[in-house]
Amino acid sequence: MMEKNLPIRALLSERAALVERALEEALSPENIGSSATADAMRYSVLGGGKRIRAFLVLAFADLGGGREDAALPFACAMECLHAYSLIHDDLPAMDNDDLRRGKPSCHIAFGESAALLAGDALLTYAFELLASDPSVSAKSVREAVLILSREAGEFSGMVGGQTLDMALSVDSLGELQTLFLEKTCALLKASCLLGLYAATDSPDPDLIDRAERYARALGLAFQIRDDILDATSTAEALGKPIGSDARNDKKTALRFMTVEEAQKRVEELTAEAVDAVRGIEGGEILADLAALLAGRKA
Amino acid sequence: MMEKNLPIRALLSERAALVERALEEALSPENIGSSATADAMRYSVLGGGKRIRAFLVLAFADLGGGREDAALPFACAMECLHAYSLIHDDLPAMDNDDLRRGKPSCHIAFGESAALLAGDALLTYAFELLASDPSVSAKSVREAVLILSREAGEFSGMVGGQTLDMALSVDSLGELQTLFLEKTCALLKASCLLGLYAATDSPDPDLIDRAERYARALGLAFQIRDDILDATSTAEALGKPIGSDARNDKKTALRFMTVEEAQKRVEELTAEAVDAVRGIEGGEILADLAALLAGRKA
Repeated sequence: MMEKNLPIRALLSERAALVERALEEALSPENIGSSATADAMRYSVLGGGKRIRAFLVLAFADLGGGREDAALPFACAMECLHAYSLIHDDLPAMDNDDLRRGKPSCHIAFGESAALLAGDALLTYAFELLASDPSVSAKSVREAVLILSREAGEFSGMVGGQTLDMALSVDSLGELQTLFLEKTCALLKASCLLGLYAATDSPDPDLIDRAERYARALGLAFQIRDDILDATSTAEALGKPIGSDARNDKKTALRFMTVEEAQKRVEELTAEAVDAVRGIEGGEILADLAALLAGRKA
Repeated sequence: MMEKNLPIRALLSERAALVERALEEALSPENIGSSATADAMRYSVLGGGKRIRAFLVLAFADLGGGREDAALPFACAMECLHAYSLIHDDLPAMDNDDLRRGKPSCHIAFGESAALLAGDALLTYAFELLASDPSVSAKSVREAVLILSREAGEFSGMVGGQTLDMALSVDSLGELQTLFLEKTCALLKASCLLGLYAATDSPDPDLIDRAERYARALGLAFQIRDDILDATSTAEALGKPIGSDARNDKKTALRFMTVEEAQKRVEELTAEAVDAVRGIEGGEILADLAALLAGRKA
């Protein structure tokens, strides 16, 4: 059972530390070897990040009545998948970003071929992690594989979002929202649903509906807040170059609204996220998380 | 039940046509959309290739007593995974090959970012295909996901083989064999085992052992034959530039033996493959396949 009496910041830190230890084990030389690719995998996954996706897996596993240790491999799978998406997104053929989480991005540190392979290996390993925990039922594993592959894939999933992002233009707020739904919300949705399936192979349909609404609102709010930070923060605070979205002619909410309007939209979406988890036991920490992310500085 | 009375060439063509139809359906706009990435996926998967991996899935499903239609999604998954590996392998950061199966490679035809994303999407979709067939038991799906993720991954799997291939040098035949085992044999092994698990969730251990021995010998023979063809064939016959292995200082068996010695090794390995499937009902077509590949011209 997840400790619920800590303030959300302390809870996030505690969960992040737990996930970090599980990732260190999952990505140890005993488990993935010691090649250049394995080093690049560890470099990109370990020692950084807010572990929001893993937190969502653990929190929804808890909501669903599951045990945290059974949900940890799913949480690690989401973090590996997220890291793969960042590595490939940073490559010269994509966003060509040199800095990630305040350090050189993977291809700068290890070269392009190792970064490509590390991303491929992390995507592959995410599915291995889903299937390798004997305490999770085969039926849950099948659902988890379906969920992750769909939400991470081309058709309305994360790769589809990257495809939209590489297209020449996004000409309306509606198109931008579709981009955000695929690029960001899809993996958050997968995280929430994976948590529910780590707990049981037949989650309560009401919880599934709530998880989907929560992930959608949280992801849209997160992405708009990201655009605000990209325009107003400092490189030091963000750990990556500021203004890079606008410079690369990327798709930012600020093309369609002012910073003030954007932050108002973040608040509205946060209220939607809070509403989605209202009245369920354990939902408070998810409401607190949404509120925390709405005001985050990095 | 697979038709066994056709000669192996006719059987290969018949299976390839069946798999092609299943892939066209799996990769239709209804199933994966119509974006640039989806077009690049179809371009790289459809209309070419010998479909050896799919053939192995279907043949081993048949050996294991399974129904072919239940094994087709696993067969399609292997072809999607194979296509992803070729797309990423051809990228400028890897082998930088402009030609594949006689036509421009994916990044030449669609650009680097679409090729990167198409590879990512096909790898992801392979796992979706494994999990989406309701006629296969959840237990078989879990095993299939474990097998594919391990054989395709960094640790002794296909990405590990690519990692070795990008390393500066291979200084002995033993190192070269390790490279071949990971780069080529791993996916052939996955194909054979996936066939067995498509048939049943508890395959006969003797069949598993035979599948592993067969895949190992077939893959090594295939790779050495590839090196011979690369050195002696024409670009037109191969559908890719000849001599590119030697030109790029890649790892070829011919660094360590003559063409004649290499072909003798191909014959020995083919005999090992034939031996692995001797005496089991339906094993003849696998023996015939090994013999056919040992003498192939492209």
